[in-house]
Parts: sequence; C-alpha cells; structure tokens
Amino acid sequence: MPEKFIIAIDLGGTNLKIALIDLGYRIINKVSLNTRKFLKKKELIAAINSYIAELIKQKRISKRDILGVGLGLPGPVDAAKGLVHFFPNLPGWKNVKLKQILEKITRLPVFLDNDANLMSLAEARVGAAKGARYAVCLTLGTGVGGGIIIEKNIYRGANNASGEIGHIPINEKGPRCNCSGIACLEAYIGNNSIGRQAKKLFKRNISLEELSALAKKGNSKALNIWQGVAEKLAVALVGVVNLLNPDRIVIGGGVAGAGSVLFDKVREVIKKRAMYVQGRHVRILKARLGNDAGLIGAAIMVRENIPNAKY
Amino acid sequence: MPEKFIIAIDLGGTNLKIALIDLGYRIINKVSLNTRKFLKKKELIAAINSYIAELIKQKRISKRDILGVGLGLPGPVDAAKGLVHFFPNLPGWKNVKLKQILEKITRLPVFLDNDANLMSLAEARVGAAKGARYAVCLTLGTGVGGGIIIEKNIYRGANNASGEIGHIPINEKGPRCNCSGIACLEAYIGNNSIGRQAKKLFKRNISLEELSALAKKGNSKALNIWQGVAEKLAVALVGVVNLLNPDRIVIGGGVAGAGSVLFDKVREVIKKRAMYVQGRHVRILKARLGNDAGLIGAAIMVRENIPNAKY
Repeated sequence: MPEKFIIAIDLGGTNLKIALIDLGYRIINKVSLNTRKFLKKKELIAAINSYIAELIKQKRISKRDILGVGLGLPGPVDAAKGLVHFFPNLPGWKNVKLKQILEKITRLPVFLDNDANLMSLAEARVGAAKGARYAVCLTLGTGVGGGIIIEKNIYRGANNASGEIGHIPINEKGPRCNCSGIACLEAYIGNNSIGRQAKKLFKRNISLEELSALAKKGNSKALNIWQGVAEKLAVALVGVVNLLNPDRIVIGGGVAGAGSVLFDKVREVIKKRAMYVQGRHVRILKARLGNDAGLIGAAIMVRENIPNAKY
Repeated sequence: MPEKFIIAIDLGGTNLKIALIDLGYRIINKVSLNTRKFLKKKELIAAINSYIAELIKQKRISKRDILGVGLGLPGPVDAAKGLVHFFPNLPGWKNVKLKQILEKITRLPVFLDNDANLMSLAEARVGAAKGARYAVCLTLGTGVGGGIIIEKNIYRGANNASGEIGHIPINEKGPRCNCSGIACLEAYIGNNSIGRQAKKLFKRNISLEELSALAKKGNSKALNIWQGVAEKLAVALVGVVNLLNPDRIVIGGGVAGAGSVLFDKVREVIKKRAMYVQGRHVRILKARLGNDAGLIGAAIMVRENIPNAKY
C-alpha cells in the first residue's frame, strides 16, 4: 500500500501556510503565502485548492494518497459542524460552512479547528505536553491565545470558545482590552503592549527579538520588561493552576523566545502564589513545536478524525 | 423488594451532619452535631458509626437496606482511593485511609469526596445546574469553595485539587490570603473579610444576615458592601467564563443570601467584561439546594458509584 499524507493549512492574519505532512507528522513540503493577497473568501478558497493540487503534483503522488485536509483558523469556529463563526482580523468570514465548501471543491475529507486548539493538540501529542492528562497551552503573540487539554483531548466548552487565557483579568481596574474587557492579560502582555513599553524605555522602536537578545546579554531595562511580563503572565496562571490543577502549562509564541528570563520568573511567582499542591505539581514548559505547531496540530486532527482509514 | 436508603455525611468545620436519604434524594432523618465535640479522629469515626446505627434503628430498617455511606469532607481528598489528604481546619487528619477504616467498621460500601465537589454534583443532578454540560459551582462562606462540572461529571484535575475559584487572584497586588497566595478572591470576599468591612462602616459587629436584610431595605452602606463583593466576585468569574466557557455558574453559601443585590451586579459586570460569546451564553444562577446540598451530593455519589445495585 502506498504511503499516505495529510494536507495541513494554517491560516493566520499574516501568513497562509499550506503543507504536505506524512503520518509521522513530518513536514514534507510547505508553501507560505501572504494572507493579505487573498482577502476575498473566494480567492482564498481557490488558492487553497490550487496549492493543494500543486503540493500533490510536486511530490508526484495522487489525491488518493491524501487522508484529508486539516485547517487551523484564526478565530472562533464550530469544529464539529465545520463552521467558521468569524475571524477578528479578516473581514468577510461570518458564518461560513468552510468544511462543506472545501470538501466539495477538493473532494477530500476536511476538518477544521481554531489555531490555539490545534497548537495545544500538537503539543499534547508530540510536543511539551505529551503524556499529560491535563495541560494548558498558551501562545504569546499579538494576541494571547490558549487551549486546554483535559483527559488528553481538547476541551471546547459550551460554544467552542474556551481557553481564552489572554482574557483572564489580572486586575480589578486596568487598561481596556481589544475584546472590550478590562485589565485582561492580553492588554498587558500582547506584543503591541510590550512594544509600547519598550519604546518608552528605550526611546526608539525595538523588536521583541532585540528585546530578548538584550535581556540575554543582561541589559537591565530589557530584563525589567521581561520580568514585568512574566509577573503579569504568572498572576493569570496562578488562577489557572488553582482552578484547573493541570499537570503542565506549555508556553509558546514569539514572547516565549525570551527564554529563561521569562520562564524562571513565571515559575518563581507560581511557586510563591499558587496553592501548595497545585503549584508544586504543575510543570511550566516551553512549547517544543515552534511555528509549525498549528500545521502539525491540523495534521493530527485529520488523522484522529479518520481513525479507521486503511494506512 | 424493600426500599433502599443511603447514609450521607457532611463533615464541616462547625457541624457534622448525618442523614438517612432515600433514592429520590429526600432527607428522611437527620442529626446535626457540633464537630468540635469529636476533635479526635477515633471519636469522630466512632460517632459516625453509632449515629448510622441510630438512624437505621429509628427508621426500623435493616443495614441491608442501606446502599452505602457517602461523605463530604472539608479539605483535599483522593476520591478514587478514599484517602483524606488533610483538613485545613481540623487537626489530626493527615493521610487517613478513611474509606477503608469506615468500610471495616460499618461493613457498608463507603465513598467520599470534598464538600465543594459534592455540592456541585448535587446542583448538577437535581439543582440549578441540572442539565448543564459545563457548570461551575461556588459556595461563598468563610472560604470560597468551588467545583467544576465537565460533561456532567466532576472535574478533578491532576491531584483532586481543582475548582479553587476562591484562590483566583483578582489583582496583581493585594492582601495575603490564608492559602499563602496574594490577592485571592477569598481574601476579599470571604465572610471574615466582609465582616471586617461592615464593622468599619457600621462601627459595630454586624452579621451577614443583617447586612443582607439592610441591603434589601435599601441601606446604602450595606448596598455598597454587597456591590463591592459582587464586583470582586465578578472579576474572578470573568476569567472563569473566558477560560471555561461554561453553560452555567451556580452560586450558593451564606453570602449568596444577599440575593438580587449581589446577583444583578455579578451579571452586569460579567456582561460588561466577559468576551461576547461566552458572556452572552452563561447563566448566573442561585444555588437551589441550600445547606443540604452537601448531603444530597454525598447520596448522589453513592448511588452513582453503585450503578448496578439491585434497587
């Protein structure tokens, strides 16, 4: 029997990534496109379809060798129904039956979920949360996303809207958040907020990469910023730890690149402020899968949704 | 076949309640004792055994009509192993195999769990959370306890230590909590803290019942206190709502007796600060089972743990 593959797609506000992945979750071939080139829904769907054909052709395999298509999406979706509710950063996607549309056009089984859930699934199966029964995964970026793993599966909540760790308030009063909440974690430690703090302190624009590099060299201003970020993140995580008593918390995304300056402080604050049993038990780990976590999670979703496929 | 019954026990820091309950979860007979009378573990166990015998005798039934004994306990336990880790307010209970001890002495099947979990189970089966797939239940008292219902069952977490809603921080900085955390919800809205606020404002000791009654009459100082309590509670619940996307939040315990002054404000703040989908979906309800929720939950636990009993 010929080898089987999965098409994994990661639609972000900036990049659209389409990959051919094998059943060992290795990325065989990948294209990365600018999402802004396909702002219209129809164009994006057509592009997905033609790039799938292209990846198959390049690898010289047939469509019958593809188990299915998995999509990670930047907003609330109904994974069971294959429905996109909306994308906060991409207009024109309200209540789209994307699974149905793509199955018709690609003639392949299609599964979808939001990107934070798929990142969490990937870390739970083959990453830093592997083997944990209860895990909470975060991606720190422009937004602060999250996913919850319970009994080794994604916990979805009543409306597929769980896991919003970025929108846990860490103060009674504080800055207004994009979600219209007040004092949400994201309002303090989203990339834009860190960038603003850094600009104030350094009197110039400074990237998060540079800020991480400066901290690693011992620059005290940069260290201050990261420790402040870590303290705020830890306050939200103390609540998560006391509420959910997870085995592990996995932190990924750009900000996690700050490394031990961030992680050491987060661990210290959780140890100090969380309840004894929960705080001593939980392990705080860096995500292992990096930028491809969403693609790998999409592939895992496809494989787990077609458990009896002959492969 | 004769009717069957369950023995339910609710051990609190103040009262020890022992009840005979039928399979419709009606309390047939109940004794309430002062916990402080049985401070030694052996005395408490002996008292439980003799009151079980007494309740059976009073009802003129036989031990064979008892399905089992269910205990709700005031601290962290391992329900699966039947093990008491410790009780924060009762000394001498470290790592006690209570299930095993009581099964030997009573010759009945014994099941145990912590009181917040059993209150949540009771509300989920026959109370305000009935029918909800995802619910979060709180008891507001000296401590602020909680339980999480996921897919209609108690969510326990990695160490049977989940659900500690009272220990979600609601500020980065704030008062030290009994749990050794900082700015935990309980540090602001535990009964003692409310009592201190009231004493400051009214220049005398004032019970929570009086404070509730004054608020209902429109007393502005009392209203202020309850609205402050509601706002703080709501900040923690916004985090819970955004994180877990529950169907319902059920609030019980003494403080919930303040009624609509508390519930209206909690609903208002959650509507304002929680994310749109989650905040619009969740219903905030008053617990329905009152002081007997723990006993009823203990009876439900026994029945659900003996699913194939002939009755």
